[in-house]
Amino acid sequence: MKIALFPGSFDPVTVAHVDILQRSVSLFDKVVIGVGANSTKQPMLSLDTRLKILESVFTYESKIEVRPYEGLTVDFCKKIHAQYMIRGIRTVSDFEYEKAIAQMNHELDPSIESIFILSNPGYSSISSTIVRDILRHKGDISKFVPAEAMRFL
Amino acid sequence: MKIALFPGSFDPVTVAHVDILQRSVSLFDKVVIGVGANSTKQPMLSLDTRLKILESVFTYESKIEVRPYEGLTVDFCKKIHAQYMIRGIRTVSDFEYEKAIAQMNHELDPSIESIFILSNPGYSSISSTIVRDILRHKGDISKFVPAEAMRFL
Amino acid sequence: MKIALFPGSFDPVTVAHVDILQRSVSLFDKVVIGVGANSTKQPMLSLDTRLKILESVFTYESKIEVRPYEGLTVDFCKKIHAQYMIRGIRTVSDFEYEKAIAQMNHELDPSIESIFILSNPGYSSISSTIVRDILRHKGDISKFVPAEAMRFL
Amino acid sequence: MKIALFPGSFDPVTVAHVDILQRSVSLFDKVVIGVGANSTKQPMLSLDTRLKILESVFTYESKIEVRPYEGLTVDFCKKIHAQYMIRGIRTVSDFEYEKAIAQMNHELDPSIESIFILSNPGYSSISSTIVRDILRHKGDISKFVPAEAMRFL
Amino acid sequence: MKIALFPGSFDPVTVAHVDILQRSVSLFDKVVIGVGANSTKQPMLSLDTRLKILESVFTYESKIEVRPYEGLTVDFCKKIHAQYMIRGIRTVSDFEYEKAIAQMNHELDPSIESIFILSNPGYSSISSTIVRDILRHKGDISKFVPAEAMRFL
Amino acid sequence: MKIALFPGSFDPVTVAHVDILQRSVSLFDKVVIGVGANSTKQPMLSLDTRLKILESVFTYESKIEVRPYEGLTVDFCKKIHAQYMIRGIRTVSDFEYEKAIAQMNHELDPSIESIFILSNPGYSSISSTIVRDILRHKGDISKFVPAEAMRFL
Repeated sequence: MKIALFPGSFDPVTVAHVDILQRSVSLFDKVVIGVGANSTKQPMLSLDTRLKILESVFTYESKIEVRPYEGLTVDFCKKIHAQYMIRGIRTVSDFEYEKAIAQMNHELDPSIESIFILSNPGYSSISSTIVRDILRHKGDISKFVPAEAMRFL
Repeated sequence: MKIALFPGSFDPVTVAHVDILQRSVSLFDKVVIGVGANSTKQPMLSLDTRLKILESVFTYESKIEVRPYEGLTVDFCKKIHAQYMIRGIRTVSDFEYEKAIAQMNHELDPSIESIFILSNPGYSSISSTIVRDILRHKGDISKFVPAEAMRFL
Repeated sequence: MKIALFPGSFDPVTVAHVDILQRSVSLFDKVVIGVGANSTKQPMLSLDTRLKILESVFTYESKIEVRPYEGLTVDFCKKIHAQYMIRGIRTVSDFEYEKAIAQMNHELDPSIESIFILSNPGYSSISSTIVRDILRHKGDISKFVPAEAMRFL
Repeated sequence: MKIALFPGSFDPVTVAHVDILQRSVSLFDKVVIGVGANSTKQPMLSLDTRLKILESVFTYESKIEVRPYEGLTVDFCKKIHAQYMIRGIRTVSDFEYEKAIAQMNHELDPSIESIFILSNPGYSSISSTIVRDILRHKGDISKFVPAEAMRFL
Repeated sequence: MKIALFPGSFDPVTVAHVDILQRSVSLFDKVVIGVGANSTKQPMLSLDTRLKILESVFTYESKIEVRPYEGLTVDFCKKIHAQYMIRGIRTVSDFEYEKAIAQMNHELDPSIESIFILSNPGYSSISSTIVRDILRHKGDISKFVPAEAMRFL
Repeated sequence: MKIALFPGSFDPVTVAHVDILQRSVSLFDKVVIGVGANSTKQPMLSLDTRLKILESVFTYESKIEVRPYEGLTVDFCKKIHAQYMIRGIRTVSDFEYEKAIAQMNHELDPSIESIFILSNPGYSSISSTIVRDILRHKGDISKFVPAEAMRFL
């Protein structure tokens, strides 16, 4: 059984995240969306809200499961028996950051393989950081997050 | 009438900012320097000081106006009837960041066009962040900020 | 009178070129599309064909003029009295290349200012090189070049 | 049945190619190594030699098949019923190039998904280009190509 | 006498730092490891601990001296009569950052030359930031820091 | 005795090359400028002319010697007993290319260390490629090459 982890903060989930998931889910038997609970940065949305949004977005995707996690991402992979990690890449800076993380994870556990999917070009400028910034300034984020997320924001 | 916004924190304004403005002002009938008041980061200089420095630097440039703003940059563009936004680019990292911001702004308001000007190579390493760092360590910043700014720093 | 040069090989012109031009033409009184005749590389399309395609694409844009040129681009700017050069940037590699060219041009003639416009994200992967490659392999290029160009290809 | 194409020139295959394949083969039921026959550049090794080397390298990998192809890569995907394309990324330049190609391929056929695998850091500087360069200068390439390839080089 | 400064936070020192030093020490008569005491960020390890770790790591390297410093790095260079600064570069982002710092330092004091050494590829993903992150999550950092550092962490 | 190789095509030497050499020569007892004779690309200037130009530029630098070479650069290092290789870096693309070359050289001969020097920002856009292009178009290159080179060009 091929299990993959798609880890992130999802503060909030964006249409770019949804796109990455929809394009990679066919490769696996199960994809766990792991919502990091232990960031040192204070999130905008509580862990509980982030989990609820993701569950409502992916409610009809039977292969996708949403779970919170604490600790190292590779340890969470082992716990859920994931052999793969899915990561989206939008920009060159993303690429370099993801490359460093993937190589450190490979050192920590060589049995876990990182798989990269490129964002759809139309989504390549959308990040949770920019969405939070627009929200803070009372702008309209409805183009950037999935419809199901709007009632939580 | 062609109006452009040159938005930033200007904490403090540097000779690189002045260079970008002098090289782009001929393209427009009016350029508004928009000083962001709503950053989540605590600035080194008060909004009032940043405005005073900019006004003293550009006092003889009749096409340039200095104004504070809050909220989304695209909303401020609409308020001042700016059809263009001017951005300086120094490095590859700048480029990627500016690209994401420009594309989000384009989504939020497609009538506003972002225009990019490259820094003079002699100025390409000068950033407000590095100037603040030198100031904090009591170094000499007189080569990096316009002469008019020195009496405020 | 504000005159800009938009130089290139246009072998062939793509929808990305058209997008850059449409987004920048409002800034200028006249834009000259300069078609380089002196590349050391053998073009796929003859200079004459490239000129004809561009003329048919921009036939209704009264501010746009299409002209071939030989020699240094800054010398052609002087000849046509262009004070500005328009360049599109799609990627980080483009950015670095354009930066070097702009700085050399600035050394050769500091009175000419380079203005950069970012591609629409949907067009950021379209280049003449890739279009030529698809053509060579008998693929369908109709999404990548303006409709007027199709009958020449 | 999940079929992936791993396209390339393989002039010659390197240990970095082998690493990418070994790390991604578990995701698929079948992986076709597609050896491009129609490059405009004159290869160092004949198509026949490149095919023979790959066959001897992967002779014990029952899920891997080696095939030559001409024409557009997306057309070859359709012919072999591949829904996925595997690409290795070593550097930022690779990333930008692969991104453009993946986006064009997505335009040409949205049903084919590109999957990216990062090179092992120890292999990130190995490219066929550099291997050819070392060969031309009579250097020792035995660390950079699979053992099975050595008797052909 | 050729003296070089190798400045940093070393919070904590990693095997990548040790590699850079071992590869560059032969160029100089003396290398001072300067441990910055004045970062605005709160370090994980106290200055005293960072100094003790470095001293125990380099106790047998007679050409290497460990010293704390405050204020501008170029001022510390002058104080210790260093004509060179050694910097490691792992990634493109590092490169751009180091380039800006080196150019500002050159403006502040043109007599100090920055010398760059590339990380060993096996170490290119190791940074103090990632090591701190693994520590915080109770992961195993023994592959990433020198053995002498382990008893302090 | 510390010997370094500064390898290149020098077709032609530029003021950026001269700057890199002047900033690094103090580190070594002897610097050999190695002029590659075996490029697959046809040079603009003959090997003989390139050697003559370099000799006239560095005639008063007693520590600098100019020599042609064929074959692998690491083999030439061994022949001249160079333990170091000096490389200039101007841009991110340079950096990635140099990184790959340095890592391959390290694989081929781990006793040779590559030392990187950043271009002076004013020189960061000057490359032999652009100088050749200006020459071909009859432009003025006198700002970009050392005075001694002008009578050969």
